[in-house]
Amino acid sequence: MADRNVQVLLANRPEGWVTESDFKIVENDIPKPKPGEILIQNHWLSLDPYMRGRMSAGKSYAAATEIGDVMTGGTVGKVISSQNPKFNEGDIVVGSTGWQLYATSAGDGIAKVDPNAVPLSAYLGVCGMPGATAWIGLLEHCTPKTGETVLVSAATGAVGSVVGQLAKMQGCRAVGIAGGPKKCEYAVKQLGFDACVDYKAGNLYEDLKAACPDGVDCLFENVGGEVMDTSLAVLNPFSRVALCGLISGYNATEAYGMKMIRSILVNRVNVRGFIVFDRIDLYQKAVGQLVRWVAAGKIRYHETVAEGIRTAPKAFIGMLKGENLGKQVVKLT
Amino acid sequence: MADRNVQVLLANRPEGWVTESDFKIVENDIPKPKPGEILIQNHWLSLDPYMRGRMSAGKSYAAATEIGDVMTGGTVGKVISSQNPKFNEGDIVVGSTGWQLYATSAGDGIAKVDPNAVPLSAYLGVCGMPGATAWIGLLEHCTPKTGETVLVSAATGAVGSVVGQLAKMQGCRAVGIAGGPKKCEYAVKQLGFDACVDYKAGNLYEDLKAACPDGVDCLFENVGGEVMDTSLAVLNPFSRVALCGLISGYNATEAYGMKMIRSILVNRVNVRGFIVFDRIDLYQKAVGQLVRWVAAGKIRYHETVAEGIRTAPKAFIGMLKGENLGKQVVKLT
Repeated sequence: MADRNVQVLLANRPEGWVTESDFKIVENDIPKPKPGEILIQNHWLSLDPYMRGRMSAGKSYAAATEIGDVMTGGTVGKVISSQNPKFNEGDIVVGSTGWQLYATSAGDGIAKVDPNAVPLSAYLGVCGMPGATAWIGLLEHCTPKTGETVLVSAATGAVGSVVGQLAKMQGCRAVGIAGGPKKCEYAVKQLGFDACVDYKAGNLYEDLKAACPDGVDCLFENVGGEVMDTSLAVLNPFSRVALCGLISGYNATEAYGMKMIRSILVNRVNVRGFIVFDRIDLYQKAVGQLVRWVAAGKIRYHETVAEGIRTAPKAFIGMLKGENLGKQVVKLT
Repeated sequence: MADRNVQVLLANRPEGWVTESDFKIVENDIPKPKPGEILIQNHWLSLDPYMRGRMSAGKSYAAATEIGDVMTGGTVGKVISSQNPKFNEGDIVVGSTGWQLYATSAGDGIAKVDPNAVPLSAYLGVCGMPGATAWIGLLEHCTPKTGETVLVSAATGAVGSVVGQLAKMQGCRAVGIAGGPKKCEYAVKQLGFDACVDYKAGNLYEDLKAACPDGVDCLFENVGGEVMDTSLAVLNPFSRVALCGLISGYNATEAYGMKMIRSILVNRVNVRGFIVFDRIDLYQKAVGQLVRWVAAGKIRYHETVAEGIRTAPKAFIGMLKGENLGKQVVKLT
């Protein structure tokens, strides 16, 4: 057990691309739990695209992180001291305790998990918020029917990789969009996608037409920009779009101009922007199913692991650039 | 009764703005109904934005009109000869019999209407397809609740004017967007909108913010382009967008680039493209209610009337440019 806490703070609000200088790493004493609190030693930190939004002051669905505050982030760790009757020393818990080695909490939003069901880091990805996002976005918003075609962008990411596998379990044709042949090969050979289109190959529209010979009935959108615009062009009548993320624009200083709005009208498309916590009623059901499916080998996942809290800024920037494969996590212990 | 039929044909597929030379006006014999058919003398022709789509070869929700074919269009007229037991001479009927003085029909899609309930031309507007479009788009797709704010573009048009009045009947704040002070004054003083923003005044975002102090819960979109883009910027969390039309782009050679897609994600907006005939199950209910409300003076409407079939091309182009107030019709007899 390290004898000091290490925290990553927000140092500047980035304009455009995030740089490592937008973060500040500090050391300080391990906090002491007050009455009613627990002290958690974090083992794993999750890095997710939504964090880029928290770094900006602009209006979003959650308040911005303040300058000088610890960066927001999901974590899995061990309770090492408890003054809260709901938790015992040794409990393994997930929560959003931030980019730091130790955190105290009154227990709100902290959930115990079974360390024997799946590897701990999976609770930050396939069996955590990204997995539940895939489950809710696909099954509740896209509502795919057997035989339909599901298209998902960022197909090998933490969310997209689950979307594709859930689509296959629904009896759908699963088509991914990813950057580069390595990711596309992984999507097809390891995750079981029927096809994966490399948007970097420069022929996205024609490649999508070929990969989706019956058009697209469900679009699970994580990327935005030209990738989304081109995907809108291959939608079928009465198709559904779950708008989950727009990562291509998160570091842009000027918004992309989406040209295929007409497809939404002509095809009578239903587009729904969503975040997973709007359906908190379904969260535990989704995670419970995903844990069982992962434990049974029915759903596969991959992680890109950064080592040590001090690597988190670099790993985060890499993830925003698509350098990771699967879920990006940071190993803290 | 004229002794010749006059028809307006599609002569060319316009690139960009429609011109009168894209139409050809021809005279020919009044058609004779075959067994099972009726002959209709049209009294009124409807001119609607969707017709611009039929003039192009591009994929849309309905097949394009072929070069040399009679232009598609809704009509109300009188059965002057019947060889179909479902219709009698003298019946007043609505249908889509095209830009012409006389038409034969086997009766499919032809509905008898009560000539004493409302003026005949109303069956092409407030008590016809545009009114039903407003009813279904607002009540089924936008689902406004009492106290919410409904924003509608092309607010004084055939659809928008009904949307605003239905929104008021639902106990909502109704805010319109229209082009020019005359239309905005009409929306507020005659139709009962709470406010109307003139998009031509050049200050749309600030004016929308002022007109919608509590933001927008329902956007009924008829226009697209910059008007829609700016409207997306004032949406509330969990708002609904009924995407009914994109008239600002129908004559454009290059698609507008919509920048505020992020608002759909951040505000978890539900955007639904729709056309009225997808909810044919609700059409008669909607029209029935609208006829009663118009007859009772609860819903008001205005028409811009062109005189004579030969003026239809010019009136159609004027409507696409927003020169009409309310419903654009052509008086044929």
